[in-house]
This record gives sequence, structure tokens and C-alpha cells, in this order.
Amino acid sequence: MAGSIDMMLRDLNLEKVESLPEDFDPTTVIKDPLPPIARDSSGLNGGHPVNGQEKPREIVLGRNVHTTCLEVTEPDADDEVTGEREAYMASVLARYRKSLLERTKHHLGYPYNLDFDYGALSQLQHFSINNLGDPFIESNYGVHSRQFEVGVLDWFARLWELEKNEYWGYITNCGTEGNLHGILVGREVFPEGILYASHESHYSIFKAARMYRMDCEKVNTLISGEIDCKDFKAKLSLHKDKPAIINVNIGTTVKGAVDDLDLVIKTLEETGFTHDRFYIHCDGALFGLMMPFVKLAPKVSFKKPIGSVSVSGHKFVGCPMPCGVQITRLEHINALSRNVEYLASRDATIMGSRNGHAPLFLWYTLNRKGYRGFRKEVQKCLRNAHYLKGRLTSAGIGAMLNELSSTVVFERPQDEEFTRKWQLACQGNIAHVVVMPNITIEKLDDFVNELIEKRAIWYESGKLQSPPCVASDLGNSNCLCAIHKGTALES
Amino acid sequence: MAGSIDMMLRDLNLEKVESLPEDFDPTTVIKDPLPPIARDSSGLNGGHPVNGQEKPREIVLGRNVHTTCLEVTEPDADDEVTGEREAYMASVLARYRKSLLERTKHHLGYPYNLDFDYGALSQLQHFSINNLGDPFIESNYGVHSRQFEVGVLDWFARLWELEKNEYWGYITNCGTEGNLHGILVGREVFPEGILYASHESHYSIFKAARMYRMDCEKVNTLISGEIDCKDFKAKLSLHKDKPAIINVNIGTTVKGAVDDLDLVIKTLEETGFTHDRFYIHCDGALFGLMMPFVKLAPKVSFKKPIGSVSVSGHKFVGCPMPCGVQITRLEHINALSRNVEYLASRDATIMGSRNGHAPLFLWYTLNRKGYRGFRKEVQKCLRNAHYLKGRLTSAGIGAMLNELSSTVVFERPQDEEFTRKWQLACQGNIAHVVVMPNITIEKLDDFVNELIEKRAIWYESGKLQSPPCVASDLGNSNCLCAIHKGTALES
Repeated sequence: MAGSIDMMLRDLNLEKVESLPEDFDPTTVIKDPLPPIARDSSGLNGGHPVNGQEKPREIVLGRNVHTTCLEVTEPDADDEVTGEREAYMASVLARYRKSLLERTKHHLGYPYNLDFDYGALSQLQHFSINNLGDPFIESNYGVHSRQFEVGVLDWFARLWELEKNEYWGYITNCGTEGNLHGILVGREVFPEGILYASHESHYSIFKAARMYRMDCEKVNTLISGEIDCKDFKAKLSLHKDKPAIINVNIGTTVKGAVDDLDLVIKTLEETGFTHDRFYIHCDGALFGLMMPFVKLAPKVSFKKPIGSVSVSGHKFVGCPMPCGVQITRLEHINALSRNVEYLASRDATIMGSRNGHAPLFLWYTLNRKGYRGFRKEVQKCLRNAHYLKGRLTSAGIGAMLNELSSTVVFERPQDEEFTRKWQLACQGNIAHVVVMPNITIEKLDDFVNELIEKRAIWYESGKLQSPPCVASDLGNSNCLCAIHKGTALES
Repeated sequence: MAGSIDMMLRDLNLEKVESLPEDFDPTTVIKDPLPPIARDSSGLNGGHPVNGQEKPREIVLGRNVHTTCLEVTEPDADDEVTGEREAYMASVLARYRKSLLERTKHHLGYPYNLDFDYGALSQLQHFSINNLGDPFIESNYGVHSRQFEVGVLDWFARLWELEKNEYWGYITNCGTEGNLHGILVGREVFPEGILYASHESHYSIFKAARMYRMDCEKVNTLISGEIDCKDFKAKLSLHKDKPAIINVNIGTTVKGAVDDLDLVIKTLEETGFTHDRFYIHCDGALFGLMMPFVKLAPKVSFKKPIGSVSVSGHKFVGCPMPCGVQITRLEHINALSRNVEYLASRDATIMGSRNGHAPLFLWYTLNRKGYRGFRKEVQKCLRNAHYLKGRLTSAGIGAMLNELSSTVVFERPQDEEFTRKWQLACQGNIAHVVVMPNITIEKLDDFVNELIEKRAIWYESGKLQSPPCVASDLGNSNCLCAIHKGTALES
């Protein structure tokens, strides 16, 4: 069975030989595949600003699932004899599988790598694997996968330059859990701290503020989507008496913009915040794992004064179910554990029971691909993102691609059916495609060709006058509307 | 492949013909398989006290996983050619599978039903299924399983007597997420409310209090583990000016005790709390799904003034990964949604991305077994729990089994190796076995026989004088130590 599904997935990822776009510099992907083992995890390392990331934004539509749901019905008494129930369920599942194949094929908008093959792990699906509690301390429940989980955590701690005996972390259920954990650790370190996060941060950051009853200052962003450190400084100055807890986006949800970590730290220092008066959480949901492989890209590193980093496992790595990795400093968790002595010892995760299959998926992919494999895939994603942006602008469609990002932002298609077919994430006047390893040039061509065709209908049938102006979202130079076309050419 | 794993799992669950213990009344399991569809979800329904549940307690041991973890290593450049990497990983996975088989066979202490066969779903493991956001409103990401999720939620809403258009809920990652959600909804309804929970509540309740910065009153328990409503009344009287948020245990973690919901409500009313001044969350992690099938068992029902109910999916139902179901009143979520307008619309779940496979597992089992199937399994569990308690007391081992519970509590074994082999959950002087559908009489016999053998060594070799007194944990009448033996016989 595994074999046939592999073939089916390969069919979905048929790749043509991909030509490089002219403006793409392949040397931007680093050659050095292995980061050195972290030796010095103390103090600030100076260096570059920070990496990139991407998260899905749950843009909801008004379609109520109740109208299409699959009711659970009571089996007839003779179902076991007639086999009717089994037959019914098999047919439901077969139809569902077919729709998943179709949906997987047309997916472009969310940063999920849908190209994976975990056939070797299907032999483990039949076990109830649960890493309840702390990853580093075995519970009495024996059906767990901690030995794999800790292997994965070690790999990430090394990536982000924190020694084995100085880090703590766990495999989470999703990017949100990583953010909830990071902000909670920050609050426990600074109970009176104020949370600072840019407007374009993932909504889970503001959910955390509300859940944890923290004061929160929203900071403005630049047109790229990055945090505006001028405004950050102004907001900080209002609350010099209170410690600062800062969310730094390693790739924002919509535009894939990377906050400048080093500038954030510099701003804190200039405003009089010493290192013992701030806590930085880096939300690296997608780009946290891509940026280490990009030359010139700034580094997320615990050699800088940061408190925690999170990344999603189902995004760039690819995984059947959502998961993520959260890494923080052991000293913070020790402090937290002391504080919660009335809880079961070392209850330092947000969740209690924890999915033991996710660590297996991550361990398997990390081992199989290694740094070299990821580097290759990052290169492919950046190249294909450039290709997509080039094709869009050639067709007169305003688009933006942040440097070192694989998120291409462009004018929102005027037809919900088209948006839903390609599963684009939209916000206001803009939509985006996140180029993941399973997105081929062929698929991008199909998409752009169809978009061009449809636009001709939308804007030439007379129903809609002209494409929307996206200057306020993407900047004048990226807008190709009637007004800004000239500007773009001039700049 | 599915076939061979089925066979292997069947081997693990070989059942002998099971004889009923003499003191077991099979009529305690109800014959009526289908609860009526809820028609009236308003007001208080009087009636019985409440059902039962069980959760794992993460009793941690000092074994550090770092010493045994499986390091992620970089593939050699020629690994793809030589196939050495594939061979290494296959051998790691084969060894791991063997250890899971052994561990699954000897598991007794955590309330996880390890007897399931999801072979029919293995064709879906290769998809990245994600129900991000609200279950009832489709997101643009098309690879989801909301149609199955809502089917499952409808089933549970019907079980707990709440109309389709009056409930909201979602499939969670575990029991803890259900509790975090229930307590959060309570706090949003009553921002100034005080949280009341018995000492024997799951630790996630106290974690919630800390996370959400809520004042929390811990209430004493009876020897059975139930909440002591006298003490509850006294604590309520101290804070009559503030609304009350109450966690009611439908089966406590250690003793499987069921808090008396009706008495809790009566106590609130008697202390002057009108229905608009309290919110009750029912933590029904395990027993929430077992009790509906037990005659005489009190009912968890939204016809009573409760706000939310949670239950785990990986416990009584059985599931490869942890999951749960959370049901609450739609009116509360609507209020919550209004409050969080700065978040993405309808961000009412704790997590953002959500595992889309869990709903498939639950949908599959509910459809296949139905109410009738669950009833049969509940009967088997209660019968086997009685059998275990009988065998323990016959052997002179103090034990307790709460009425309508399948959690057998007894003196803690004096040998950590034995405890770890059988994966018993322990606390202080006591340990417990939770009898799940996959625990056969044969397995219980093996366990008791080995325990009797080992006790002879522990207590007769002269190293340890005598079995511990468990009277303070289980009551005089359940203790068979030298002092209380007589008491037990008298009572």
C-alpha cells in the first residue's frame, strides 16, 4: 500500500526541468551545509539581523460546515453480518481520499510542504504513542517516542547555537503552541512586563496577551511588513519603568517579512533596557528553518540575548499533522518549575498528553534529508518564488517578494471560486502564494496562466473597471495599477 | 501491511472466556443504547449526580532521556548511492516497533485504550490534513477534515443534550486543551470570577489558573476522591461577592472519583449563587464517555446549568495520538468572539493549526462501534475492574474501586522496576490500574500473580517489614495492613 501511495504522490510532484530566472542569484544559498557546534552561548554576538518565517492566516469564509458534515450514525444490529456498514465507510473514505488528492494538487496559499513520504513509518500508526509531560524525563507510560523527540530537539538547539546542557524544549502541536509557550515563559520571567509585537504578528501573539492578561503594545510596520523600530522606540519610551517582552517575527504571516532582530536589540539598548530587563521570543514558524540555509540571511542564535525560538514542523519540513519545535533556555524553565511546585513536577509544557508520532516524522525527515537536503530545497523555493514574481509582473500584476523570502504577495483575485480552488490566503486587497518544496514551476505556470485568463474576464467583461491599487499594501513601486504603473517603471 | 499489523494487535488482545466475579451486577450497564435527541436545553433538569472520568497523572521519574536519545546525524554524501542510511533507519525503526509491542502489551496504569485498528485510514496518512481555526467555518486551506469533525461534535452534543444550533465545540489535542478552553471560557464570561477546584483535580486546572491569572480556591476531597461540598460551601461563603467558576471532575485522575454535579449545583444555590453568577466546566477526560452507558450513573447534561464538557479521545475510544472533544454553549463563544475582534474572526480555539487526522479516527470508531459497541465495552471494563479488585483483596492487598469506576487503586508496589514494567501511575503510597477495553482477565491475572510473587520477596526477605498502611488514602475499610485488617472485616 505504501508503494502505491508513494507513486500517487510522485504523480502530484512531477517536475519539469526548471530554468533559473535571470534575476536570481544562486549564490544566495550557502554552500556550508553544517553549522558549527555552539561553543559559546553567552552574551551578544553582534552580527546580522534575523531570519525569515511564514505562518498561515486563518482567513475564514462564511461557508458553514454543518451543511456538508458526515453524520455519525448508529450501526444496524445486523451490520456486522451484512458488512453494509464497512462498505459504506469504505466508500466515504475512498471519496474523501480522492478529494484530498485534488485539493493537495491545487494548494498554493499556505506554507505547508505537502511533499513527503512517511511510508516507512506506517508500521507505527497502530500504536498509541504519547510523550506526556516533559521530553527529558520519562513518565511511567512506556509507549512513547522521547528518544526520537530529544534527538530532534538537539538538532534544533545546535542549529540555533545553544548547548545541550543549556537548553530546554519540546515538540509542540503547532506554531501557536510555540508562541503561547514563548510568551508565557517571558511573562513568568517578567510578571510585570509589557508585550510588544508588530501589527503584522501572528494572531496567536495577541491571543496570548489576552489569555495571560498582559498589557500589549502594538507596533507599526514598514511597507515590507517588518517591525518599524522608530515606532518601537517611541512605544518603549512610554513604559521605561517596566520590563519588555518582545515578539520578533522571523517571517510575518502575510508578507513573509523578517523583523530585524539586531535592530530590535539595539533599539532596546538605546532606550535604556539592559539585557536583564527584556525577553525576546522569535516566532520562526516557517522561515526559522529556511533562513539558516540562506547566505546573507541574518542568524537566529542564542548567542544573542533572546529567550526562545519556535518553528513549525508541518511547514517547511512537511508532516501529516501540525507540529512544531520550541526551544528556550533551561534556566527559564528551571525558574518556571520552581514557581509551579503545586503542579506535577516539571509540568513545563502547555499541553499534557503529547502526540508521540510527530517526533518520529521530524526525526525521519531530518535524518533522511540532513542540512544538505534542506539547503537544496531552500534554493529551489527561493528560485521558484523569483520565477513566480517575474511571471506576475510580466503579466502586469503588481507583486512583492521580500528579499530572502519565498512568499509572493500580489493583488487579490476577484473571484472567490478561483481563490478557493488555489487555496490562496487573502487579506484585504492582497493574496499570497508561499512557495514550498512541493510547488513546481509547472504548477506555478498553470496558476499564472489561469490567473491571466480569469483577469481578462474580470476586468474586460466590464463588470469590474480595473485591477485594485495595492500601493498601500505593497508600496508604490510594486503596484502596477493605472496610477502607479509609471512610478514602478521610474523607480 | 495493514493485515499483518492487525494480526499482531490481535495477538496482544487474545482473550480467554471471562467469568463474572460474584459481586458484579451486570444490570448496572444500561440496555438502552441510544440517548434521546436533546429537545430542551434550557434550565436545570434536577436528577442525578454526575458521571465518571479518568486522566493520566504524569508522575515523573528521574531518568534523563538525553542518555538514550537517538541523535540526528547528517547523511554521508554517498548515502543515496550505498543505501546505508536507509538501512540504518529501517533497523532503528524495527527495533523501536518491537519495543512498542512489548510496552503496549504490559501497559496497565494509564487510561488509554490501546485496542484499535485503523488500517482503513492508513491510505490518508500521506496527506497534510489541517483543520486550522474554527471547525464550523471553512478556511481557504482545502486539505481538511471538517466534515468528519463536525459529525463527531454533533454526536457528542447529542450525548450531552445540547441542540445543534446551540452548541459550539472542537476536537482538541488532549484533555488539557479541553480544560484550558473550558476554564478560559469561564473566565471570559466572569472576568472577576474565582476558580474552585478540588485538590484531586487534574493539574491542568491549576495550570490554567496560573496561566490566566485567576484566583483559585482549592477544595478538600472525601476519601473517595470526590469534592467535599461542605468545604466547598465554606470556601464559597468567603467570596460571595464574586462569581464562581467551578471545575467538576467526572472521574478524578488518581482514584476515578466522580464529583457530585447535582450537589455542587445545590451547594451553589444554597450559598446564594444564582445561575447567572456561576460557570461549571466538567472535566470528563475518561469517564465522560463511559458513564452515559452505566445505569444509575448520574448524567452530564447541558439541561443542567453547566458551561462546558471535555472528554479525551485517546482514552476510552482509543487513538494513535492524543486528542479530545470540547463542547460548550454557542452563546459563550459568540460573546468571546465579540471580545476578541482584533483577532482573526472566530479564533475561538486554543490552538491555531489543528490535527485533521484525529477527527477521522474518532469518526471511524464512533461509526463502527456506535452506542451499542461502547456499552458492551463499558460493561467489560467495569466487570474486569471488579475482578481485579476481588483478586487483590483476596490476596490481602488493600484496594479501592469507586462505584461505577474502572480505576482500581491499591498499595504502591515497592519496586520501581515492577512499576515501570506494568506502567503503573503512582502517587504517594498508592498506585492504580485503569481497566480499559484492551485489558483482559488474562492480563490482569498475569499482573496479580506477579505482584503476589514479588510481594513475597519484598516483605518476606526481611528488607521491608510489612506492606504500607493505605488507610489515609483509601479509608480504613479498604486497608488490609496489620492494623486495619480487623477494621476491614468488621465494616
